Amino acid sequence: MQAGFAMLCAGSIRSINIKNIMLKNLLDACGGAIGYWSLGYAFAYGSENNSFIGSSNFFLGSVKDYTSGYDLAFFFFQWAFAATAATIVAGTVAERCKMVAYFVYSFALTAFIYPIVTRAVWAPQGWLGAFRTNGPSTTWCTTSQQEMGLCISGSFANNDGFYPSRLFGPGMIDFAGSGVVHLTGGTTAIVAAVILGPRIGRFKDEHGVKLISPNNMPAHSVILQVLGTFILWFGWYGFNPGSTLIQSTASSSYVAALAAVNTTLSAASGALASFALRWALSDSGLLDVTALTNGALSGLVAITAGCAVVWPWAAVVIGMFGGFLYIGFSNLLIKLRIDDAVDAIPVHFANGIWGCISVGLFASNTLVKKAYDYPTNSYAGWFYEWSAGCNRCGNGSLLAAQLVGVIFIIGWTVCLMTPLFWTLNQFGLFRVPKEEEQVGLDISHHGGSAVQLTKPTEEALAAHKR
Amino acid sequence: MQAGFAMLCAGSIRSINIKNIMLKNLLDACGGAIGYWSLGYAFAYGSENNSFIGSSNFFLGSVKDYTSGYDLAFFFFQWAFAATAATIVAGTVAERCKMVAYFVYSFALTAFIYPIVTRAVWAPQGWLGAFRTNGPSTTWCTTSQQEMGLCISGSFANNDGFYPSRLFGPGMIDFAGSGVVHLTGGTTAIVAAVILGPRIGRFKDEHGVKLISPNNMPAHSVILQVLGTFILWFGWYGFNPGSTLIQSTASSSYVAALAAVNTTLSAASGALASFALRWALSDSGLLDVTALTNGALSGLVAITAGCAVVWPWAAVVIGMFGGFLYIGFSNLLIKLRIDDAVDAIPVHFANGIWGCISVGLFASNTLVKKAYDYPTNSYAGWFYEWSAGCNRCGNGSLLAAQLVGVIFIIGWTVCLMTPLFWTLNQFGLFRVPKEEEQVGLDISHHGGSAVQLTKPTEEALAAHKR
Amino acid sequence: MQAGFAMLCAGSIRSINIKNIMLKNLLDACGGAIGYWSLGYAFAYGSENNSFIGSSNFFLGSVKDYTSGYDLAFFFFQWAFAATAATIVAGTVAERCKMVAYFVYSFALTAFIYPIVTRAVWAPQGWLGAFRTNGPSTTWCTTSQQEMGLCISGSFANNDGFYPSRLFGPGMIDFAGSGVVHLTGGTTAIVAAVILGPRIGRFKDEHGVKLISPNNMPAHSVILQVLGTFILWFGWYGFNPGSTLIQSTASSSYVAALAAVNTTLSAASGALASFALRWALSDSGLLDVTALTNGALSGLVAITAGCAVVWPWAAVVIGMFGGFLYIGFSNLLIKLRIDDAVDAIPVHFANGIWGCISVGLFASNTLVKKAYDYPTNSYAGWFYEWSAGCNRCGNGSLLAAQLVGVIFIIGWTVCLMTPLFWTLNQFGLFRVPKEEEQVGLDISHHGGSAVQLTKPTEEALAAHKR
Repeated sequence: MQAGFAMLCAGSIRSINIKNIMLKNLLDACGGAIGYWSLGYAFAYGSENNSFIGSSNFFLGSVKDYTSGYDLAFFFFQWAFAATAATIVAGTVAERCKMVAYFVYSFALTAFIYPIVTRAVWAPQGWLGAFRTNGPSTTWCTTSQQEMGLCISGSFANNDGFYPSRLFGPGMIDFAGSGVVHLTGGTTAIVAAVILGPRIGRFKDEHGVKLISPNNMPAHSVILQVLGTFILWFGWYGFNPGSTLIQSTASSSYVAALAAVNTTLSAASGALASFALRWALSDSGLLDVTALTNGALSGLVAITAGCAVVWPWAAVVIGMFGGFLYIGFSNLLIKLRIDDAVDAIPVHFANGIWGCISVGLFASNTLVKKAYDYPTNSYAGWFYEWSAGCNRCGNGSLLAAQLVGVIFIIGWTVCLMTPLFWTLNQFGLFRVPKEEEQVGLDISHHGGSAVQLTKPTEEALAAHKR
Repeated sequence: MQAGFAMLCAGSIRSINIKNIMLKNLLDACGGAIGYWSLGYAFAYGSENNSFIGSSNFFLGSVKDYTSGYDLAFFFFQWAFAATAATIVAGTVAERCKMVAYFVYSFALTAFIYPIVTRAVWAPQGWLGAFRTNGPSTTWCTTSQQEMGLCISGSFANNDGFYPSRLFGPGMIDFAGSGVVHLTGGTTAIVAAVILGPRIGRFKDEHGVKLISPNNMPAHSVILQVLGTFILWFGWYGFNPGSTLIQSTASSSYVAALAAVNTTLSAASGALASFALRWALSDSGLLDVTALTNGALSGLVAITAGCAVVWPWAAVVIGMFGGFLYIGFSNLLIKLRIDDAVDAIPVHFANGIWGCISVGLFASNTLVKKAYDYPTNSYAGWFYEWSAGCNRCGNGSLLAAQLVGVIFIIGWTVCLMTPLFWTLNQFGLFRVPKEEEQVGLDISHHGGSAVQLTKPTEEALAAHKR
Repeated sequence: MQAGFAMLCAGSIRSINIKNIMLKNLLDACGGAIGYWSLGYAFAYGSENNSFIGSSNFFLGSVKDYTSGYDLAFFFFQWAFAATAATIVAGTVAERCKMVAYFVYSFALTAFIYPIVTRAVWAPQGWLGAFRTNGPSTTWCTTSQQEMGLCISGSFANNDGFYPSRLFGPGMIDFAGSGVVHLTGGTTAIVAAVILGPRIGRFKDEHGVKLISPNNMPAHSVILQVLGTFILWFGWYGFNPGSTLIQSTASSSYVAALAAVNTTLSAASGALASFALRWALSDSGLLDVTALTNGALSGLVAITAGCAVVWPWAAVVIGMFGGFLYIGFSNLLIKLRIDDAVDAIPVHFANGIWGCISVGLFASNTLVKKAYDYPTNSYAGWFYEWSAGCNRCGNGSLLAAQLVGVIFIIGWTVCLMTPLFWTLNQFGLFRVPKEEEQVGLDISHHGGSAVQLTKPTEEALAAHKR
């Protein structure tokens, strides 16, 4: 995934800042690994019965007690998610953010802020998610959690197959992280963009006079954008179907295959919807490649929460709306004069929200049962309220849980990130000086331009011909 | 695979048309997903007992009845093939084809023309392929088809283990699609190239005077060609061994591993053969990277049909001849003044044919038995006619079935694609106007060049030094 | 992996020699496949009871006797390693090596020199490795070797679970090839670099006068370096966890997952260590992307030997030291005026040695037991000498075996490669003529520059506007 984000960012920004963004993308992966290993994983999945934060297994200290490879593979998988959440922000603040600020925020996110969100939604102790199993009585947990060794004392389902301790009954369903990963990253990006301010020359000219139409900074390379999009699309098949975690039963292979199909359909319809809308809104009939690539990513982000619990037709609807939403939110940001160098906010923030909500609308009770191991019955999206043979399915409680989840993730992230970025900014650690920004970070920080074309000298050419 | 094709195409054409080709490659993947989901998959694998076309499971409507994930995974896998068939054409018609024509042909191919071919060769109802199992009596089908739920009423094998209802006994063997995927795409490419005509300046100068030696349009980037080739080569390991579909038995793991080894050897020998021949034919001892990359792809296309049913030595032979064939066919096209911007026709059309025929020559009866679950005996290639202990193996019936398959695929595709492209051309929807072609499609359609190198201004440099 | 090396090399050298390096990288993969299939695999894994060299299964001749796919998959996997060993050298000798010399050395390496090393360390007959099982009495072998069909008559473990026939007891542990693959390739690179000499203008000016500070040839593209690093990093998850080979038992899934986690942590800490040290040593506070990418690769090479037998904390230590070592060795090479165009020697040679030695220091006896199927007890690294409850663990015998392994690999490779390169050089087959080097190999050998930017003509632009 990091490779995809790196290529996408390198393609989307100006060519004077490429080394800088590459460095940030690699540092994410490296710093994220160390930060998540040392602190983050313990906060997220420490085995204590605390629904807010864990406090054991720092530095993977429990590794010796593992009896199978599941726990280690789980750590590995979760690291990939954590690094993804961190890297989303890199693109938004590109071309003007100081390296030290990037370091600080990136460590804070992977080591603390993001783990708290994952614990709430994905850990069996979490207070918010559909995996929550702890409660007054016994040690029930789902089959896959048993295999993962994530069981703790849990609440048995009551007679009709529901878990009273889960939020509103169903708990929040975020299968592969529309909310946990993308919304957390996207919210951070929006806070950062507001505090950091736009790039010089984006909305104002050099004398500080507001421009009538904003200046589009030229994207360096469409080739890299497309390559990055394909790599990310491909990587998503690791995240979405991979979230099934253990594909041993027929049911989990069904869930994984459905996730793959839904991911594909949503990406495709998101791309087409966004591309068509951009074309329709354009005076000159522009066929915009960036609308296609970011539309595909929007569809991918939107289906991430629900990939295992909606039918293929719903995936097409979710992706299509995600594509429209991308165009709308991107234009809104320009109106608000918030400068997002790679449009990460419309993709990850707007569609992160939409992904969570869409589950509350379109989740099928049959599929929720399959994916979340409900014994007899299950909840479903609000869309199914009228459907027959579905006890409690569509009473809106799932939608309510999704909304609470969205509000929690945005609130939590804003409350912690705002003071952090504000402080950095006050101490002059957030934004590079004007001169360095205008000359480009590659020259001012990294010893020269990222691409250097050498040409043979005239003498060499002459000597070779002889 | 799309990523590989996108990079390969972007590297092989002129840099003024890159956004355009990237867009087409992404649209393929997206449009193909929607077209195949809505119509194509139903036409190809609908469960009716019709050997020509299916008519159920539109929009994956039967998804709720699936009991395991196999059917969904199968759809996902088949979509990847369909998108590949469509994208082959993109390169050939690059730099001059209108977007609307691309849309129309691409939808026609994935939603109808290609599905009919797959049904004939790969579906258990198909009239042409080695998977055909339906006939007068009972419900026999192969182990893997049982697991896939693709069984229908089928003909039992007669006493010596043969299936009378299959074409000439063996039916056509096209394990991973030399014919189904590459020949279908390659035939479409050749029809399109003939009707569309060559790029301006390729064989004639600006006044329409025939050039003595054709003008080689400069390929944009060898780096991208090589990257694309590596990605495709890697993706082929998904297609060829992946076509084993379910690797649960020792036999199918053997088949998958053999497919991987054969794929490797054929790609390598194809690359070396093509590279050496190009070098030998060149006056100046040119070491041509493109001959190496396209030679590798030729070897890959050629082995695709037989990867599971030939021994490694035969894979080397098949790849080597494929490499030679590439050079020969590429030169032939130039003689015929057919302009193929990325040499997709020699790779996919010529080697698609060769791949199908090579199975008829080199298929081993032991391996056909393993890969196609024949109970006691099996057919083999014509090469084995004289070998002992092999009942009926080499009587040429497999070769005959392969030839019928090749003729059917070419005939079917030509008959449908010719009127389609001819009509588009008559209505002026096929080729861009001369002015737009000469300025490049990136400027005329997509708002500017694909690669934009920003440089710091003199003032910014001066300010930074201070 | 080849794709990663190709991108990394293309990014790291001057843009006048890109086609050349791409060609070499592709030829490696192709030539390696043919060389390894015809001779190398037989020398490495022929089933004779000869601890130095095998002599059967040339051209995969035994393929018909295989009963499952394991042997074929094993060949496929081993080919990927062989091609990697060969390609390491390509970068070091870039920009000045003749194609014919590259051919010769590359074939010699994959067909003979490398296979002898693999037989010593990885084959059950090998005299050096921890897999050695043959000896006086019976046919014991490890579970995974039984499944691979690699068992031969072997020595039972004695009563306390040790194998007297292994070197010093434990034999050399090189799980995924720090020594076998990277040190072999790295040693070849150092021999080649010394005999070939530096590029013109690197350490001397055009009149042959020694430069005070060496001239840094400009790297073509940091984007490609980063892309290559990410692809390699990703590919490493195929090599390190993949070396578990058959993940059917809980124990092997544990080993594979641990290998993945350790690989991640070592790469991350290597990158950060190298980046930080380069920054600290620089006067101007340079944030060097290349130090980050090569540091990550150094961490990856260093953990390759021990990824399955050390705990995560040790992986962090190993990676960190690997990163420091990279910077130190890179500076040492410049002092010694040995010119390595892509710094492959510090990455693969220096960290190949460190990887082998680190196992002798940090291997945990619990993990060695798991990974190498010791029945009751096992050896461990020297670091654990004082730990309780560990019989014989830390007596230094493992470290001794590792050191013998390092010396053997370096000695064997130097002794064969030196005469080979020396002879090539004497006959003028090693280095390109001065004129060809100065004009760049792309122009002198491959028909022109690798990247060709076409621009629309003025007339075309004017015609389009009308």
